[in-house]
Amino acid sequence: MTARGLKGVFLFSTAPNKKKTEIFYIFIYLRRRKGVIHMKIICSKSNLVKGVSIVSKAVPSKTTMPILECILIDATADIIKLTANDMELGIQTEIEGEITERGMIAIDARIFSEIVRKLPDSDIVIETDANLQTVITCEKAKFDLSGKPGEEFSYLPIIEKEESIEISQFTLKEVIRQTIFSIADTESNKLMTGELFEIKDNILRVVSLDGHRISIRKIELKNEVADKKLVVPGKTLTEVSKILSGEAESMVNISYTNNHIVFEFDNTIVVSRLIEGEYFKIDQMLSSDYETKVRINKKELLNCIDRATLLVKEGDKKPIIINIGDEIMELKIKSQIGSMNEEIMIEKEGKDLLIGFNPKFLIDALRVIDDEEATLYLMNAKAPCFIKDDAESYIYLILPVNFNAA
Amino acid sequence: MTARGLKGVFLFSTAPNKKKTEIFYIFIYLRRRKGVIHMKIICSKSNLVKGVSIVSKAVPSKTTMPILECILIDATADIIKLTANDMELGIQTEIEGEITERGMIAIDARIFSEIVRKLPDSDIVIETDANLQTVITCEKAKFDLSGKPGEEFSYLPIIEKEESIEISQFTLKEVIRQTIFSIADTESNKLMTGELFEIKDNILRVVSLDGHRISIRKIELKNEVADKKLVVPGKTLTEVSKILSGEAESMVNISYTNNHIVFEFDNTIVVSRLIEGEYFKIDQMLSSDYETKVRINKKELLNCIDRATLLVKEGDKKPIIINIGDEIMELKIKSQIGSMNEEIMIEKEGKDLLIGFNPKFLIDALRVIDDEEATLYLMNAKAPCFIKDDAESYIYLILPVNFNAA
Repeated sequence: MTARGLKGVFLFSTAPNKKKTEIFYIFIYLRRRKGVIHMKIICSKSNLVKGVSIVSKAVPSKTTMPILECILIDATADIIKLTANDMELGIQTEIEGEITERGMIAIDARIFSEIVRKLPDSDIVIETDANLQTVITCEKAKFDLSGKPGEEFSYLPIIEKEESIEISQFTLKEVIRQTIFSIADTESNKLMTGELFEIKDNILRVVSLDGHRISIRKIELKNEVADKKLVVPGKTLTEVSKILSGEAESMVNISYTNNHIVFEFDNTIVVSRLIEGEYFKIDQMLSSDYETKVRINKKELLNCIDRATLLVKEGDKKPIIINIGDEIMELKIKSQIGSMNEEIMIEKEGKDLLIGFNPKFLIDALRVIDDEEATLYLMNAKAPCFIKDDAESYIYLILPVNFNAA
Repeated sequence: MTARGLKGVFLFSTAPNKKKTEIFYIFIYLRRRKGVIHMKIICSKSNLVKGVSIVSKAVPSKTTMPILECILIDATADIIKLTANDMELGIQTEIEGEITERGMIAIDARIFSEIVRKLPDSDIVIETDANLQTVITCEKAKFDLSGKPGEEFSYLPIIEKEESIEISQFTLKEVIRQTIFSIADTESNKLMTGELFEIKDNILRVVSLDGHRISIRKIELKNEVADKKLVVPGKTLTEVSKILSGEAESMVNISYTNNHIVFEFDNTIVVSRLIEGEYFKIDQMLSSDYETKVRINKKELLNCIDRATLLVKEGDKKPIIINIGDEIMELKIKSQIGSMNEEIMIEKEGKDLLIGFNPKFLIDALRVIDDEEATLYLMNAKAPCFIKDDAESYIYLILPVNFNAA
């Protein structure tokens, strides 16, 4: 890495009591050197819009550090790189373009993103002067903004890759969608706000739970890899999922250390801190015993519960009562607004059962099951319900709720 | 009009000191008569959804009269009619369906609309009993809701049509879109919250104004009709516009009295009160004198001003400064965020001019002009700017704002 005006490179570890795998490089540009901050780049509107949209996902909506509200445009080397970093999650992407003068600048992400979006569909020139004044020109439109010094920006940590796995963009996007809804949104238990990525016997198991339910998805890995457990922040997964194209042919390389996870795909690198601590022991909560097994058309069940929730006002905790009999499942809900009941044909093995659930939890799980038929395994009205396929490529555990049977 | 269980028909005028053109029919059903309220209808989901969606536009979001939050299902005659009425604006639409038992019921609009939307795409049966309990059945789904007596609902006033005009749904929808943005949203001057519909010499002129600007559209009428001035509430026009299909082949019949306007199209009737009072004398504000005439590409001008507003935070009143010279219009805006300037090629007649505008007002007018080129007529930096076509089928008057030329 070379850059004009580079005065010193400081190299240190931010985690001195941890392994030396995480080393942060911070390049300090001394502004006092005359003409150092002076950059000129040219790139197409579409490339710039795409890049800005990707890195914007890591711009914090609230922060006490104004520099974090910026996107760093780094054209100090041969490639134009855009970076945003909220210190938990950092995203860097390369965009095609021409570098006329090497340099870098940090610009307010919101205004920069709005401007590039509204410029004509043509080449955009970005120039900065020694006072950090940034001029964005496109055809006859000219914007003048104040930038911030690039050296104040926190570069992404450079992770020394120990090990990595590779899965398709499609698979990663899907597995996030199929599990992210059951993380907890409170910060009272930090571990619950993340998802467990557990690699064991070349299988990646992704787990999320919130105290009322557990979602589990399994993915077979193609490469041989050592066992590992990581807890990835939910926010990171949400943002990664938005950037992923979702193509089955494009791959994502996922590498990790004890403290960081790195997603690399297309021209983009996403680096995130991991959540520290030991994740919940979920295996002891999973049981394959059951007294009642129900096969049901997934869409019929989902639509029925979806309709039932119309009668439940937000914040109101009305359960949906499910009465499992021979060949028929009867669903009932009753609130101040009115009542609903509906019957669905099922295939049943084992005992009849009357059980109540939070309808939202059933809806969340059923929505992300792509099979036409779903199988429910139940023990009794107090024990969790399992929705899973035979291969256990997915398991959704949902706790029942008490209800007044009268 | 006949209906089983109809005990008495009361006929009176709600406006005894006005002309007898407005007569309200209210059908009073005496609930005490055994079995009177008992209705059974069957109609397709799609018909019901469409009808409910149309009349819902007249359901008030806030009201002290709970009955107004309902949709009236009236199957007392041979046709199923849905009605909603917030006392200012009433909408009635007919839907196809089968009446097994004649009757009527008022049901909470929000919950009813959500339920019919989420039911399977099949026939829906609606039944009521003597206690106003309403059962909505579709395939195996059954909803049970409490209704309200239909007789408590306010029927639409029956307007005795004096005169009427006919224009296409397309034209009406367009003319509303092209003028509605410049009504005032404050209630401080009631007349400004409406639009003037002025019929003169078989031309309909639609006018809106808010104290800073005036929007005028002219439509030639095909039928001979007497001169008339009406001030139609903006809300009525917004809602009518949402219901209109916008087809050029389908017509809207617009009839009116001194106090009401009625829009009839497809199977729908919209009745609205008019705003009372004398509308502003706009003709004396319109002048055809000018010192500067500018022809400009509409899209270029619009996009340029649109970009400029990125630098203006909401609530901030930064003008866009327009410098009209020979062949070139220069646009500038400057705020705390930064500055922008852009040049656009123009054809100019007359004097050079430096003038400032609220960018939003220019954007609003330019957005609804469908011509490729727009012509601006200006006098000086203190006088209004007119954007109009040669035939004056549209005129947009915009007042300039003061600015610091420095």
